[in-house]
Amino acid sequence: MDHYENRQVILKKRPKNIPEAEDFKIIKTVLPKISTGKIIIRNIFLSVEPAMKGWVSAIGNYAQPVALNSVMKSFATGIVVDSCHSDYQPGDLVTGLFGWQEYALVDAGVVDRKITTNTLPMSTSLGVAGINGITAYLGLLSVGQPVSGETVVVSTAAGSVGSCVGQIAKIKGCTTVGITGGQKKVDMCKNIYRYDQAIDYKNDNLTSSLAKYCPQGIDIYFDNTGGTISDKVIQKLNIGARVVLCGTASISSWNPPPLGPRLERQILIKRARMEGFLIFDHKERYSEALLALTKWVISGEINYREDILHGIEKAPSAISAIYRGENLGKLLIKLGEE
Amino acid sequence: MDHYENRQVILKKRPKNIPEAEDFKIIKTVLPKISTGKIIIRNIFLSVEPAMKGWVSAIGNYAQPVALNSVMKSFATGIVVDSCHSDYQPGDLVTGLFGWQEYALVDAGVVDRKITTNTLPMSTSLGVAGINGITAYLGLLSVGQPVSGETVVVSTAAGSVGSCVGQIAKIKGCTTVGITGGQKKVDMCKNIYRYDQAIDYKNDNLTSSLAKYCPQGIDIYFDNTGGTISDKVIQKLNIGARVVLCGTASISSWNPPPLGPRLERQILIKRARMEGFLIFDHKERYSEALLALTKWVISGEINYREDILHGIEKAPSAISAIYRGENLGKLLIKLGEE
Repeated sequence: MDHYENRQVILKKRPKNIPEAEDFKIIKTVLPKISTGKIIIRNIFLSVEPAMKGWVSAIGNYAQPVALNSVMKSFATGIVVDSCHSDYQPGDLVTGLFGWQEYALVDAGVVDRKITTNTLPMSTSLGVAGINGITAYLGLLSVGQPVSGETVVVSTAAGSVGSCVGQIAKIKGCTTVGITGGQKKVDMCKNIYRYDQAIDYKNDNLTSSLAKYCPQGIDIYFDNTGGTISDKVIQKLNIGARVVLCGTASISSWNPPPLGPRLERQILIKRARMEGFLIFDHKERYSEALLALTKWVISGEINYREDILHGIEKAPSAISAIYRGENLGKLLIKLGEE
Repeated sequence: MDHYENRQVILKKRPKNIPEAEDFKIIKTVLPKISTGKIIIRNIFLSVEPAMKGWVSAIGNYAQPVALNSVMKSFATGIVVDSCHSDYQPGDLVTGLFGWQEYALVDAGVVDRKITTNTLPMSTSLGVAGINGITAYLGLLSVGQPVSGETVVVSTAAGSVGSCVGQIAKIKGCTTVGITGGQKKVDMCKNIYRYDQAIDYKNDNLTSSLAKYCPQGIDIYFDNTGGTISDKVIQKLNIGARVVLCGTASISSWNPPPLGPRLERQILIKRARMEGFLIFDHKERYSEALLALTKWVISGEINYREDILHGIEKAPSAISAIYRGENLGKLLIKLGEE
């Protein structure tokens, strides 16, 4: 077959803050003909990430923003249906930045990796055994450097990265305290993700809860939110603490940057280290991370949860759903059959 | 002699912000009799540090605040005049936290080190070949980790720590840009401390000057000020930049912490590292630092400047003089003769 009708989610206008459904449009196109070095992938799972807010923002980020009227950038996992590159054959399962579309015609170099085992479900390649798990693993281990017996606090503790951080910290012998929103997620933190304690920042007093659950202070803060949650956590840091800055989900707009209490003095007197972490800097360690994550998922030491929506038309409203905290697991869009 | 009339500067009341002369009182006392394990030191040089503001603050710091009606904590260098400890003999030159007083009766353990060579003037033991030089050396090398060709920005660039940071960065092959206040200090930065460029934050436009003088961005920011100066520097950080948090001289009060633009996003997208540095954590590397600093001062690769006031009655007003930027070199109080 060399004629593919394609549906694509394109960025219609640049969102002011959190991307909403009306910022996107679904269009029907026909895939161009394949050419040398390229492959065609039928996407099966599309990923939805909090980071997408940054990807479509006009303000400088770690990459160029998604251009208007182009396909929304996204991780996806799919099956190769045509190939003009010797490394790939029809039937290969691959994952990479294939975009929010049914079919992707890409340079073979866009592929992150081939999925060669079926020990875990395909969907995990975008979550616990993909970008989220790898972020948790490398962010915690390389920046956080946990030592058995330390106290680790995680914000968005029930999220796809946070839930994994908490469990890896537990595997490393740490005491884990999760911060999340709502009783349902508190219960998930304790019952599914094995946090020693979980705090509902919407209803609990965060400062007094931290004092209660972190009697030895905080050695590592894995921060996915920034903002006022972080301000309170940072006040409880121990000498030599590490703050892994992985996301700023609590800040709806950075233009202009919101004000907050200055942290210089606290970082200084605690000789703390605050460091930004971006997974794309660490590609050479992906396979190490995947090996460990796969082992832990199989052994039951890491639990994960996925929320799967069906059909590409669910994609445009999915980012804002994450920011409203509606999903309880890694949010994925499924297209067609595996 | 076993009867020492002593003059001491004691902390009379706890300053709200910057310690002023009226927060101290000079009293006359008689030194108690020496006992086993102790030594008596006649102080010759007393040090004055910006950090003293923190030492007398009621808010938690890295140490207990100086108690009211007790001798002001201070580094000092002096001569042993009596000893009940086998490691010390009358005539030994020693440096340590001996306080703002003419004579100090201390446990021998309070001595930081004996000064056994006279290759450098005694006064340098409190500055370039003492706490300030060591802070510059270890803060820059261990946290900043400069690489030849990188751009290093220093705040309070003409200060006793900053001036040393700039010159060590230069020795390490970096491009150096100093931030200081006033044309006189700009000239000192360029002519004495060999900065490639210097910016007068009081009269220049800091943002556009940074853009002009750091065309390759900023790899290391050695921060002695915090506040709005740092906000602007941090906007120019390169990917993988390091911020050495060494002081917060620009912030007059931390109670409550002043507000500033949130930095989480910039730290994250630049994968920068911001880390607090306190010299007292690194005692095991003092001798390495002193060896290097002494060599560089002798070779002329590090210049330094001292402002020496005479008589203990000059001490109480000296801290606020630093915060007003009145001194042009390391501020010391000299008592009696060397």
